[in-house]
Amino acid sequence: MISVVLLGAGNVASHLYNAFSTSKTIKVTQWYNRSIGSIKSFKNSVAITDNLKDLKDADIYILALSDSSISKVSQNLPFSGRFVVHTSGSVNIHDLDKKNTRGVFYPLQTFSKSAAIDFKNVPFCIESEDKSKLKLLKELAGSLGSPVYKINTEQRQTLHLSAVFVNNFTNQLYRIAHEISDSKSINFEILKPLISETANKVQELSPYMAQTGPAKRNDLKTIKRHLKQLEKEEHKELYKLLTKSIQKTHGTSTLRQDSVQANSVTKKRNDK
Amino acid sequence: MISVVLLGAGNVASHLYNAFSTSKTIKVTQWYNRSIGSIKSFKNSVAITDNLKDLKDADIYILALSDSSISKVSQNLPFSGRFVVHTSGSVNIHDLDKKNTRGVFYPLQTFSKSAAIDFKNVPFCIESEDKSKLKLLKELAGSLGSPVYKINTEQRQTLHLSAVFVNNFTNQLYRIAHEISDSKSINFEILKPLISETANKVQELSPYMAQTGPAKRNDLKTIKRHLKQLEKEEHKELYKLLTKSIQKTHGTSTLRQDSVQANSVTKKRNDK
Repeated sequence: MISVVLLGAGNVASHLYNAFSTSKTIKVTQWYNRSIGSIKSFKNSVAITDNLKDLKDADIYILALSDSSISKVSQNLPFSGRFVVHTSGSVNIHDLDKKNTRGVFYPLQTFSKSAAIDFKNVPFCIESEDKSKLKLLKELAGSLGSPVYKINTEQRQTLHLSAVFVNNFTNQLYRIAHEISDSKSINFEILKPLISETANKVQELSPYMAQTGPAKRNDLKTIKRHLKQLEKEEHKELYKLLTKSIQKTHGTSTLRQDSVQANSVTKKRNDK
Repeated sequence: MISVVLLGAGNVASHLYNAFSTSKTIKVTQWYNRSIGSIKSFKNSVAITDNLKDLKDADIYILALSDSSISKVSQNLPFSGRFVVHTSGSVNIHDLDKKNTRGVFYPLQTFSKSAAIDFKNVPFCIESEDKSKLKLLKELAGSLGSPVYKINTEQRQTLHLSAVFVNNFTNQLYRIAHEISDSKSINFEILKPLISETANKVQELSPYMAQTGPAKRNDLKTIKRHLKQLEKEEHKELYKLLTKSIQKTHGTSTLRQDSVQANSVTKKRNDK
């Protein structure tokens, strides 16, 4: 049985608490939050506190806090020599106070308060300055049914950056498609199967192999018409930049270097 | 029983042929392709031809051809007064020769030769100049188990444009994440569950509601660090443009207007 003290009450902390609570090999000994209000409703299931001085003994202290609070809270812990991890994609392992054994337990997934999470689909990126502690982190992830990867701080920060591309930026492309289709009274439902299939395709195929469309096949007529259809300058800019990016990847460059500014598409010699 | 003559041998035509072949209410009477080689292997299952003059009688002629061939082939059809549709997202219904009754049967999905397609996940956008033919198009889609939507040419062209955003451009963001993570020897596997979940989320939630991340919460420290981490100028540009787009959508603009050129991030008064 692994005993855990959980710190924080945001999305990650809440989902971790729920998952740990149903695990047979993990016991949440105590739940800390700066403001007790957010966790008060759990007081019959777990010991809660808003005072770091009251923290109980545990195998691992999980700081599921905002990036900006991690360092400070780790300094304020009233003990040393114990195992303390954070759950952030971007905070350096060394930002944790060195009086404790430091580690990272970073779930690479998008959490929202409402949606249920299946931890089978949450890869954990683990790191520890004391290699013997990696086993405990593996057990912790394993007991949730989650895949687990040993990842150093630089790699984790790169993953966090990559996640912005595949999650936040991708979602913004969905948003733009929603805007564009709304403007012509088109039901966004129609696009949902394509959104799913695009994500499914790269589960098996590399994104390079999965690419199709006017940019890749250098279909200037369609690209030109699309740019004409787009009403917002911001959407035109994005269309051109992403088209240029695809053409660079696939060696089919045709957009002029200055086209992002010039708002024109012309055929040019493919000099790759 | 609906009798179909299929024209073309690309991805859409091939997947339609396979789906129609297993349907109990559709009979492919004949399959035409300009070069007989591509369909010769089917000669024991269906009548094949490379000569438009040999086309048999059918309830519907489906021109599953490249955008640039549709108009010409429709002109070369040796009959009139029959029902002729194309499957393109961008070609106008009026580009079909008016000697026949014109329609559109556009599957909004990404097809690749190898991957099997479940037509339940292929919405068909239908259009017909003769409204009485819409029933036949609905039956055709219905017999494949596909959702079907009545969509005019302008809407279809807007859907085609939206599809470029949610499919080609999204896939390029996956590609960039693949490049970035490869450069630090990170297994792209780790990002796949996040790719799936991002697509899953907008099946229920609007993309607006689903958004999270540093751009939306105006986390300048993370944005700055990400821009520093990115090695390619092209990736920086995209990062900035998409961040600006998210901030515009969510009213948290902080990137300077000129930041795409200036490669700097500064806090400015939010004047929205």
